[in-house]
Amino acid sequence: MQERKAMTSVPINDLAARRWSPRAFDATRGVSAAQQMALIEAARWSPSCFGAEPWRFLVWNRTTDPAGWQQAFDCLSENNRKWCKKVPLLFMSCAGATFEHNGQANRWAQYDTGMAALSLSLEAVAQGLVAHQMGGFDIAKARAAFAIPDDFMPMAMIAVGHQAAADTIEDEETRQKELKARGRKAVAARFYAGRWGHPAG
Amino acid sequence: MQERKAMTSVPINDLAARRWSPRAFDATRGVSAAQQMALIEAARWSPSCFGAEPWRFLVWNRTTDPAGWQQAFDCLSENNRKWCKKVPLLFMSCAGATFEHNGQANRWAQYDTGMAALSLSLEAVAQGLVAHQMGGFDIAKARAAFAIPDDFMPMAMIAVGHQAAADTIEDEETRQKELKARGRKAVAARFYAGRWGHPAG
Repeated sequence: MQERKAMTSVPINDLAARRWSPRAFDATRGVSAAQQMALIEAARWSPSCFGAEPWRFLVWNRTTDPAGWQQAFDCLSENNRKWCKKVPLLFMSCAGATFEHNGQANRWAQYDTGMAALSLSLEAVAQGLVAHQMGGFDIAKARAAFAIPDDFMPMAMIAVGHQAAADTIEDEETRQKELKARGRKAVAARFYAGRWGHPAG
Repeated sequence: MQERKAMTSVPINDLAARRWSPRAFDATRGVSAAQQMALIEAARWSPSCFGAEPWRFLVWNRTTDPAGWQQAFDCLSENNRKWCKKVPLLFMSCAGATFEHNGQANRWAQYDTGMAALSLSLEAVAQGLVAHQMGGFDIAKARAAFAIPDDFMPMAMIAVGHQAAADTIEDEETRQKELKARGRKAVAARFYAGRWGHPAG
């Protein structure tokens, strides 16, 4: 199994260092109810503006709801379907448009929903699982299939399961992606000290 | 010092369980350059759609740049200034409007920026620090003070430092907030199995 730790100039916590987004999943191993609940609890306890918890997560567990899982799978883009066929657990994160307490627009809803999704993804690592978020899915199809209201925006689908070896990926192009070196832009390109454009670190 | 662990039905990873957003900071202890870099690296290695890393983070370290720190502090809302005066390190997270590779709108930019900000906040816990994100600040003032371009949206300011005891907070109302019990909405109110509104867990 590939472990591809983040290459950082100083050590960071183990979950963040080990998290990445693999495409090789073990089709023979499901995600238990306790593991699924740990993923949910980690998302649930992430922070949000005014404590609004503006996210909603849909989850489809192939073991307990194969028909629902199939419907979710069918919303994925063609490229994602190539490898997601082996994925036992799918989530969809959605962000609310407004605050419940006053009906005003919540400009932090997508930001906060991303935080919950990352917390879920790091908990996957803690559970011996892997998580891979995807932007490639059919929003309209998902809205229709799962009765997602207009005032919630589907943001990402998240594949969760046990990792498999890269050579178990049948599709050649997908396998090449799995083996490609990880990387990030330079610190100075994204992190600024004191004012815009002035490199931090 | 208050430790106020998340109350979860199953155990979750220690960083997520211990992370919360305190207002009591120790004014006598700064954040080291190595700690600041660990926070940056944790944010840097979080995931993003198409690997775009659409975030930008500004950072002001009171120890090394007291004038810049003061300018950042002056952007905070009155309520946040009540307790942030003791905070040694301030960040501001910003989300890009478009993808660099094609100039198209990036609908995941705020979501991804939230992920990077949560990763930074969890790394704070790993470093023995605490982080507190704030939505209450003056966007226009920040844009003018730090030359933030129009195509980036300031999302949150983030206070980072060493935690202090709640009774060190002078302002009575702020101190009461610090002591208020933590909580989250029921799992069933935010997490759905199979279709919208059908409780998960």
